[in-house]
Amino acid sequence: MQRIVFTTTPGRIIDEIVHSASPSSVIVLADENTSRLVVPNIDSETVASAPVIIIAAGDEAKTITTASHVWDKLSALGATRHSLLINVGGGMVTDLGGFAASTFKRGIEFINVPTTLLGAVDASVGGKTGVNHGGFKNEVGVFNEARAVVLSTAFFNTLPQIELRSGYAEVLKHALLIGVDEVNRWLDYPIELFPYESNRLLGMIETGVNFKLHIVEQDPHEQGLRRCLNLGHTVGHAFESFALMRGTPVPHGHAVARGLVAELILSHLKCGFDGSWLHRLAKRILALYGNQLFTCDDYPTLLNLMHHDKKSVHGEINCTLLTAPGQFVNDFTVEDSDMCTALDIYRDLME
Amino acid sequence: MQRIVFTTTPGRIIDEIVHSASPSSVIVLADENTSRLVVPNIDSETVASAPVIIIAAGDEAKTITTASHVWDKLSALGATRHSLLINVGGGMVTDLGGFAASTFKRGIEFINVPTTLLGAVDASVGGKTGVNHGGFKNEVGVFNEARAVVLSTAFFNTLPQIELRSGYAEVLKHALLIGVDEVNRWLDYPIELFPYESNRLLGMIETGVNFKLHIVEQDPHEQGLRRCLNLGHTVGHAFESFALMRGTPVPHGHAVARGLVAELILSHLKCGFDGSWLHRLAKRILALYGNQLFTCDDYPTLLNLMHHDKKSVHGEINCTLLTAPGQFVNDFTVEDSDMCTALDIYRDLME
Repeated sequence: MQRIVFTTTPGRIIDEIVHSASPSSVIVLADENTSRLVVPNIDSETVASAPVIIIAAGDEAKTITTASHVWDKLSALGATRHSLLINVGGGMVTDLGGFAASTFKRGIEFINVPTTLLGAVDASVGGKTGVNHGGFKNEVGVFNEARAVVLSTAFFNTLPQIELRSGYAEVLKHALLIGVDEVNRWLDYPIELFPYESNRLLGMIETGVNFKLHIVEQDPHEQGLRRCLNLGHTVGHAFESFALMRGTPVPHGHAVARGLVAELILSHLKCGFDGSWLHRLAKRILALYGNQLFTCDDYPTLLNLMHHDKKSVHGEINCTLLTAPGQFVNDFTVEDSDMCTALDIYRDLME
Repeated sequence: MQRIVFTTTPGRIIDEIVHSASPSSVIVLADENTSRLVVPNIDSETVASAPVIIIAAGDEAKTITTASHVWDKLSALGATRHSLLINVGGGMVTDLGGFAASTFKRGIEFINVPTTLLGAVDASVGGKTGVNHGGFKNEVGVFNEARAVVLSTAFFNTLPQIELRSGYAEVLKHALLIGVDEVNRWLDYPIELFPYESNRLLGMIETGVNFKLHIVEQDPHEQGLRRCLNLGHTVGHAFESFALMRGTPVPHGHAVARGLVAELILSHLKCGFDGSWLHRLAKRILALYGNQLFTCDDYPTLLNLMHHDKKSVHGEINCTLLTAPGQFVNDFTVEDSDMCTALDIYRDLME
C-alpha cells in the first residue's frame, strides 16, 4: 500500500522512507526547473548524496524518448532491481518517472515528491504512470503505485501562478464530486491572490487527496467507480490535445477547467444539473482561465479526439456527468449531436 | 489468473477464449515468419478476421523502437483499453507483445500463442514481458500475465532444428530443478531426431510448464523461490550478451545450455554437485550445442556482464546452484575468482 505523507518537513520524511526501504542505491529524477529550484532546497541527506537525472521540462518532453534517456541513465548509474527512484517535479516528472521506474528491469520502487498543486492533488495518487505517444495523452503507461508520496506546500513557493491555477481546476473537480459544501469552500478560495493561504490550501488539498484515495482504493484499475475522477477530462483532454496540435499548448488544469464547464453543460442538458450552479462555476472558470479558442469548424477534430479517448469502450464518447454536486453518473454515452450542442452553449457562456 | 491450455486444436480454443473475453476489438501480433507460416494456418475465425501487426523477427528487433511501432499501429487501428492482442510467435514476440499490450493505454489484455518449444516452456509462463535496451537483455519491461496461453505442438512443425534445441535447454533446466527421474527422461530424449516424437514431447513440456507454474504461483514477483528458474541464466545471459556484442548472436537456449554447464561446474565446486552428473550433462550439451568461443582475455567482459545482471542486488554475481538434481540453492554469491575457475574448467570440458 502506497504511503501518503502530508508534511512541513519533506526532507526528513524522505530520509525516513528511504531508510525503511533500504534500497541498493538511490537516484533522483527532476526536470530542468525542479533540479535547480527544488532539489537543492530539500533538506534531505539522501537527496543531497544521490545522483540526479535531469530531463527537459514540460509536457512536450513527456515521451518514450525521454523515458529511454532515463533508462539509459539508470543503467549507466548501475541501478539494480533494488534501486529506488525519487521523482521530484510536477505531474510530468512523476508520471514519466513512475513509468520509467515501473518498467526498468521490470520494475523498481519509486517515491513521488510533487512540486505543483496539480501534482499534489492529481498525478501522485492512483498509480497512473505514463507518457504521451503518437499525439495521444498518456497513451503508453502502467498502473503502479509509488512506495510513498510526500506532499508539502513548501514546494509551492516557487510555483508560478499559472501552475497554481492549473492545480485549482483539479481540486475544483474533486469538490464537485464531494458535494455542495466543498464546492462552496473552493469557489470562495482566492487562488488568484499571492502569497496563497498556506494552511487553508493544505487542508483543502488533504480533503481532495483523501477523497481520491477513498475512490481509488475501492477501484484500483478503473473498472467502475473510479471513472468519476474523469469528470471534465473527456472534453478537457480533447481541448488539451487540440491546443497541442495547433502548436499553442495549454496547461493540463486549464484544459480540464474548460472541460468541466462543457461537461457541466452536458450534465445540465442530460441529467438535470442545476443551471445556477453551472453559471456560477462557468463565471469563476472564465475569470481564472479565459475562454477556449475554437470555432464550429473545429468540432469534427474535437469529436474525433473524444472518440479516441481511453475511456471509450466501443468508440463512443464516454463522460462522467453530475445530477448535482456530489451526485455523479459514470459512463454516460454522449451522442455527437448533444456534444455539439454543449460546445455551442460553451462558446456562448465563455465569451 | 492466467489460463494455460494444452491443446491439439488451438484455433478453436483461441475462439473460445476471445469469446469469453468479449473485447471491443481483436488484433494479432506476429513476426515476418509467423505471420506467413503460422497465422494463416490457425483454424480460428477470430484470428482470420483480425488485423495483423507484423514486426521484424529475431532478438535484434526486440527493442523499444519495435514496441513503439506496435503502439502506433494499435492507435491507428483504433484499439481501446478493452481491445485484446493475440501474440503469435516465439519468446521475442510474446515478450515484446506482452510488454506493448501491458503498457498500451496503461494495459490491455493479451493472449500468448507460443510457436516455439522455448516459448512454450519458458517465455509464456510467469508474466515476464519486456524488450532489450542499451545492450542489456530485457532491461525494460513489466510483470504481467496473459489472459491465456495456448500451447500446442501443432506449431512446432515448421520449427527449425536450431529452435527446437534452443527450447530443449530450458526444459533440461526444469528437469534439473525437478529431480533425477526428469533429468534422465530428458537426457534420453533424442531431440536431434526429426520429426520429433510429438506425444512424448508434449508430455514432457507439460511437466516442465506445470513445474514452472507451481513455482511462479508461490512467488509471482521473483522475490525468492522463483529465482531457482534462473539456473543457468546468470552465466547464460552473459554468454548471450557477449555473443551479441561481438556481432555473432546465439539463440537464447543455446547460451542457456552453456550457462547451465558453467553453473553446474560452480555447483560441483561450491555445493558438492556430483561430478558424474556434471560430465554426463556437459557431454550432451557439447554434442547438441557445440562449444562457446571465448578466451581468458574475455573474462573481464563476461564478469562485468554478470555483475550487471538483474538478479544482482548489490553488484555481486548471483547464481542459483544445485547440490543435486532437484535440490537448489538460490542467491548464491559467487566470487570473481570462483567464476574464473569455473570458466577455466568450462573451457577444458567443452573443447
